[in-house]
Amino acid sequence: MRTIDHTHDPAARSWVASANAAGTDFPVQNLPFGIFRRRGSGEAFRAGVAIGSEVLDLGALAATGAVTGEAAQALQACTQARLNAFLAMGPAAWRALRHALFALLHEHEGAAAAPRLRGCLLPQHAAEHALPVQIGDYTDFYTSIHHARTISRLLDPAGELPPNFQWVPTAYHGRVSSIGVSGQTFRRPWGQSLPAGAATPRFAPCARLDYELELAIYIGVGNAQGEPIALQRAEDHVFGIGLLNDWSARDLQFWEMKPLGPFHAKNFATTLSPWIVTLDALAPFRTPWTRPADDPQPLAYLDGPANRQAGGLGIQLEVALETARMRAAGRAPHRLSTTSFSHHYWSVAQMVTHHAAGGCNLQPGDLLGSGTVSGPVQAEAGALIELAMAGSEPVQLPDGEQRSFLHDGDAIVLRGWCTHERYVRIGLGSCRGLVEPAHSAAWPA
Amino acid sequence: MRTIDHTHDPAARSWVASANAAGTDFPVQNLPFGIFRRRGSGEAFRAGVAIGSEVLDLGALAATGAVTGEAAQALQACTQARLNAFLAMGPAAWRALRHALFALLHEHEGAAAAPRLRGCLLPQHAAEHALPVQIGDYTDFYTSIHHARTISRLLDPAGELPPNFQWVPTAYHGRVSSIGVSGQTFRRPWGQSLPAGAATPRFAPCARLDYELELAIYIGVGNAQGEPIALQRAEDHVFGIGLLNDWSARDLQFWEMKPLGPFHAKNFATTLSPWIVTLDALAPFRTPWTRPADDPQPLAYLDGPANRQAGGLGIQLEVALETARMRAAGRAPHRLSTTSFSHHYWSVAQMVTHHAAGGCNLQPGDLLGSGTVSGPVQAEAGALIELAMAGSEPVQLPDGEQRSFLHDGDAIVLRGWCTHERYVRIGLGSCRGLVEPAHSAAWPA
Repeated sequence: MRTIDHTHDPAARSWVASANAAGTDFPVQNLPFGIFRRRGSGEAFRAGVAIGSEVLDLGALAATGAVTGEAAQALQACTQARLNAFLAMGPAAWRALRHALFALLHEHEGAAAAPRLRGCLLPQHAAEHALPVQIGDYTDFYTSIHHARTISRLLDPAGELPPNFQWVPTAYHGRVSSIGVSGQTFRRPWGQSLPAGAATPRFAPCARLDYELELAIYIGVGNAQGEPIALQRAEDHVFGIGLLNDWSARDLQFWEMKPLGPFHAKNFATTLSPWIVTLDALAPFRTPWTRPADDPQPLAYLDGPANRQAGGLGIQLEVALETARMRAAGRAPHRLSTTSFSHHYWSVAQMVTHHAAGGCNLQPGDLLGSGTVSGPVQAEAGALIELAMAGSEPVQLPDGEQRSFLHDGDAIVLRGWCTHERYVRIGLGSCRGLVEPAHSAAWPA
Repeated sequence: MRTIDHTHDPAARSWVASANAAGTDFPVQNLPFGIFRRRGSGEAFRAGVAIGSEVLDLGALAATGAVTGEAAQALQACTQARLNAFLAMGPAAWRALRHALFALLHEHEGAAAAPRLRGCLLPQHAAEHALPVQIGDYTDFYTSIHHARTISRLLDPAGELPPNFQWVPTAYHGRVSSIGVSGQTFRRPWGQSLPAGAATPRFAPCARLDYELELAIYIGVGNAQGEPIALQRAEDHVFGIGLLNDWSARDLQFWEMKPLGPFHAKNFATTLSPWIVTLDALAPFRTPWTRPADDPQPLAYLDGPANRQAGGLGIQLEVALETARMRAAGRAPHRLSTTSFSHHYWSVAQMVTHHAAGGCNLQPGDLLGSGTVSGPVQAEAGALIELAMAGSEPVQLPDGEQRSFLHDGDAIVLRGWCTHERYVRIGLGSCRGLVEPAHSAAWPA
């Protein structure tokens, strides 16, 4: 578990003025990591840290020599085009660099360095991002009981939770090659589905395209094959958290997924937010992790006092939809739902421990999706299929539009943030992706 | 589709004498690619080609300057520690290098070069292998109708094929990090299972450990995200074929897999053979791909004349078990079953086209598992659960041993080969893996 220290001091301010603005995602208490370059520059990608409305260029910072000691080694790893080497260094290195960056950006402590460091800042609107890590493996969980209950009922009116749901932090392996960073556009997938009442399937563009609101969990330190990770040490293996949109083709999914799970329904695209908020930054927003007393309690390998006391994460989440019409009219995206990760049935630590429990080796840069984050009421659903009840209750939008599933030209924007009465608000930034029309190729080509 | 040419001439012999031995897997007509170095040397890994009982060191060959033209470019890509760059070059480059190597190793054409090339040979027993490619994504198919029928019945006596089986080349994403090369040892996994009659699951070492006999299919050339691959061009994207053991924890699998598929049951280890036999080498062994007339025929995107005429691959396969007792007694492994990939319900081309059909991008070095290869009769089953009918008919071994599932110390050896009355036999080599005892850690640690 990470500790609260001077970098969480709510009174701390930065000499970067925008970092002190009310409502910013990126005050000096946050300091999330991403990979960027000047938009359209053809420069090498390197790591940056978001501060207010700016990016602090860690490649340029390393060249100044302003950082020394253990933090300098960590900073050197951040000059590469992906964060994997930095993530592999572990919690002490992550904390050392956080402390050094906090000091340099602090309005008083960093005052002397500020003139030199101004040259290392780039406005965020002038940056373009790449994926923050080279992802070795991507695992998607299914760990919101509210989402699972609703999906079970939509599949079958008498549907119950899967019998293993309250025992196993359910997960399946996902596709790495089609993961993109915020701003990703992708074609509506083709695939097989079985239309209602039909005897044979059809192959056609997806007619029930959906999003899924998830957290992205980044593995920092791995484990050797065959070596488990004890629950009380699981978070030492986690670097931080981002946002993930697990785009889903529901008509394809419900035809293909028995018995081996989703495949075409998910593997055409997955979108990540550019910034990884560290578990260090999230320390003030930890919550107890508890289950209703009447529910089965976790097996011993998934239970422990640290997880019970602070295994939860109080992250607020929001999904917004921008239709082509809204975009043309210059309108802001329309909020579809808000929810919180505090509703989640399994904790991040439990996911990590369960993943490694059988002997599977995790590696620096591996990505875990939390599974759709849905709350206990329909308005807190993290997927359109839940909000619109599989099309039976279309979602009403401004200007007379409505949606049961996504249309071509629709963009989905995810956001996340944490608030606490005694600490400064921090945010995860946003994750945006846009649906393009299906490939027009006649089949068979 | 690859064509038959002079490199398949059954009269061709090599100046490497062991390549002309009856029954060798690696005559001059084969020329499979792998990654190796001198055992225990700490040298850099580089590509080699198997010839008889030797490895031709492609790094050393490149240094001789004996290869020129288009083949020299391909050879240069083979000096790297993984084959990905070579695989990305495509069928023309693969063929150019095959033709050049064939000429150099041919007993007449290569006679002049032989003295120089002898220094590029290393006995296979003196080589150690690494994975042949950096695997970006691993997809495991489920495409043997005989395996699927038996598994459905073992799960439920009234069990039928999944309704989508004859329409969809079923697949799920697998774990890359735990894939190892032949010689891999791994610990028996822990995991959750629901003992018969129990109300709650237990967490314990797997009690029903199994293997699965599969082909490994290596993607050479990829496709862009959102761009499908037409069936008649699908094999242009495939470099070659190896052997794959998809180790499976059946007790874990049957508890966890509804609704999202296998996870712990598969992700602790997967073993690959060291050599990739190219589709060029396999050209003489193509077979028609047909379905019983009463079965549903494939949808249009999965159907075409080239696939019908020669979509099949006549690869013979064998599974052998070496128990600790056999090993101690110096006995050869005991053959458990033999079968053929010609029984398979979906072809390699159909797997590739289906995989990309939704927009998923394949990349050089991606790995597809064919799914368990089982024939129409029990003796041709590709998994122990089928041979032993989930423990109800234990397999009898020499010396009074028997197996319902694998014991600690058991090694499984897969082999594959092709024969044809008019062509020289070629082989895939072997794929060996060994089960070690489960981790002894008390839980929770």
